[in-house]
Amino acid sequence: MSHFADRLAENIRRKRNALCVGIDPRWESLPLSIRERFGPEGIGAAYEAFGLKVLDLVANITPVVKPQAAFFEQAGVAGFTALASILTRAKELGLVTILDAKRGDIASTAAAYAEAAFGPVWNADSVTVNPYLGEDAVEPFIAAARKRDRGLFVLVRTSNKGAGLFQDLVCDGKPVYRHVADAVASWNAVRLGECGLGDVGAVVGATHPRELAELRDRMPDVWFLVPGYGAQGATVADVQAAFLGNGLGAIVNSSRGITFPFHPDDANWEAKIVEATKKAVAELSGNL
Amino acid sequence: MSHFADRLAENIRRKRNALCVGIDPRWESLPLSIRERFGPEGIGAAYEAFGLKVLDLVANITPVVKPQAAFFEQAGVAGFTALASILTRAKELGLVTILDAKRGDIASTAAAYAEAAFGPVWNADSVTVNPYLGEDAVEPFIAAARKRDRGLFVLVRTSNKGAGLFQDLVCDGKPVYRHVADAVASWNAVRLGECGLGDVGAVVGATHPRELAELRDRMPDVWFLVPGYGAQGATVADVQAAFLGNGLGAIVNSSRGITFPFHPDDANWEAKIVEATKKAVAELSGNL
Repeated sequence: MSHFADRLAENIRRKRNALCVGIDPRWESLPLSIRERFGPEGIGAAYEAFGLKVLDLVANITPVVKPQAAFFEQAGVAGFTALASILTRAKELGLVTILDAKRGDIASTAAAYAEAAFGPVWNADSVTVNPYLGEDAVEPFIAAARKRDRGLFVLVRTSNKGAGLFQDLVCDGKPVYRHVADAVASWNAVRLGECGLGDVGAVVGATHPRELAELRDRMPDVWFLVPGYGAQGATVADVQAAFLGNGLGAIVNSSRGITFPFHPDDANWEAKIVEATKKAVAELSGNL
Repeated sequence: MSHFADRLAENIRRKRNALCVGIDPRWESLPLSIRERFGPEGIGAAYEAFGLKVLDLVANITPVVKPQAAFFEQAGVAGFTALASILTRAKELGLVTILDAKRGDIASTAAAYAEAAFGPVWNADSVTVNPYLGEDAVEPFIAAARKRDRGLFVLVRTSNKGAGLFQDLVCDGKPVYRHVADAVASWNAVRLGECGLGDVGAVVGATHPRELAELRDRMPDVWFLVPGYGAQGATVADVQAAFLGNGLGAIVNSSRGITFPFHPDDANWEAKIVEATKKAVAELSGNL
C-alpha cells in the first residue's frame, strides 16, 4: 500500500473534489421505508442498510467517507457490525475511510484503540484522535498507522460553538490549539508522502475562517479535515483557506447536508442524496 | 434510584474502602487455562470469562469496578458483548460501574455516546469524558446522567508521563488543567447529593501528589477518580490528598496490580487476585 497522504491525494485528484461524506445515521431522520422495513428493534440493521446505500450513491462522486462511531455505538451490537460492514464496503468501493471515533487514551490503551481502528476490527484508513492527554495519547496511533500506511486526524480547533473554552486559552503568547497545531506539525513532518503531505492530519473547523488560514500557514504539510461546512453553517468561501495552492491539503466534511437532504417520507430520497452530493462537489471543485 | 454521589458514598462506606478495580484485559497476561480454553480466535469470550471471574472474586471486597473500553473494542464484536456482559454482572453484584471510554464529541454526537453509556447498550453508572471540545462535549453527558441518576468523570490531570504537554500550559496565571478543574467544579455544583458531593467527577492522576492536593482544594464537592496507584508507581501516601476529611471524595483505581498479580501459568491465579485486592484494600482503608 502507498503512503496514506498519497492515497488521499490520488483519490481527490481522480474524483476532482475533496468532499468527505459524513455518515451519521439518526433513526428519526432515516427514510420511512427503511424505518418500516427494520422497525425500532432493528436500528443497527437500518443504519447498515442506509449507510451501504449512501456509499453506493456517492462512491463514484466523492473520494472520502467518515462514519461517526457514536451513532453506531448507540445502536448496540448490531450497530457495531453495521459500522464494520460500512467501513469494509467503503474500501471495496475505493473510498478512503475516516473512522470518526475521537479516541484519546494513553500507552497500551491507546495502542489497543489504534489496533482496533487499523486492524481487523475496523480496518479504517484513518481515525480521529483527541490530544488532551499529550504525546502518549497520539504516539501509539502514529506508530500503528505507520506500520500499515494509515493516517490519523488530531483534533486541533473544532467547529462547535463552545470549542474555545479550553482550546482558545492563551499560553506563552498563543492559544492552546496552536500549541496542539505545532505538535501535530512536528509529528507529521517525520514521514511525508510523495505529494508533500504527511500522515498526521488535523481537524480544523470551517466555522472560524481566520483561524483556518492561520493554521494553514503553521502546518503547511498537514492534511486538514474540515468539519462545519453545510448544515453547520460554513460556506465554500469559509473553507478556501484550508487548501494549498495545488488544491490539495484539505478534506471538507458534510454529514447531514448530504445524507439527510430529504423528509423521511420522501420516496425520492436516493435522488436527493445524489443531488446534494453533486451540488456540494460543484461548489468545492473550484479548487482542483 | 438515589443520586450517583450517594450510591458511591454508600458503597464505599459499606465496603470500608474506596478501591476501584480496573478491568483491562490483555491476551498475553490472561491465565494460560483461559487462553487454552478459548484460543486466539476467542479473545472476546476469554476477556468475558476472565472479567466475570474477577467480578466474582472482588465483589464482596471492593465498591467500584472500571472496565477499559479500548481492550474490549480491540476484541471486536465478541469484545463488545463481553463488555456489556461484565457491566451487567457488576451491577447485579452491587458494584458501582465506571465505563472508561474517555469519549469526547459534541452536541447530538456526544448525546449518542451518553445514551450508549447510560442506556441499554452499556447501562453503566458512570463514564469517563474528555473535555478538549469544551462545554458542548460535557453538557450532553451531564444531561443524560441527571435523567437517570448516573455520573461522569471528566479528565482533568491525567497520570501519564506526557500529560503535561497541553494540560500544564499556563494561561491567565493557571495551567489548563486548573481551567478544566474550575469548569468541572461549577458543572458539579449544580446538583449535589446528600453526602455533599456531586455527579460530575474529575480524573486526577496520583502520580502528581502536589497537584492532587491543589485540585482537592479547588474542587471540594467533586468526586476524584484517581489512576496511577500500584503498577503505575503511586503509593498510598501519594493518594491521601485526594480524600476529604470524612474519608470520602476519592476512588483509587488499580488495574494490572490487582487483576494480573500472577504469571499466566500460575494455577493459583484466583487466590493471587483476592490477595492483591485485600492488600490494596488494607493499604487504603486507613481513610474510612
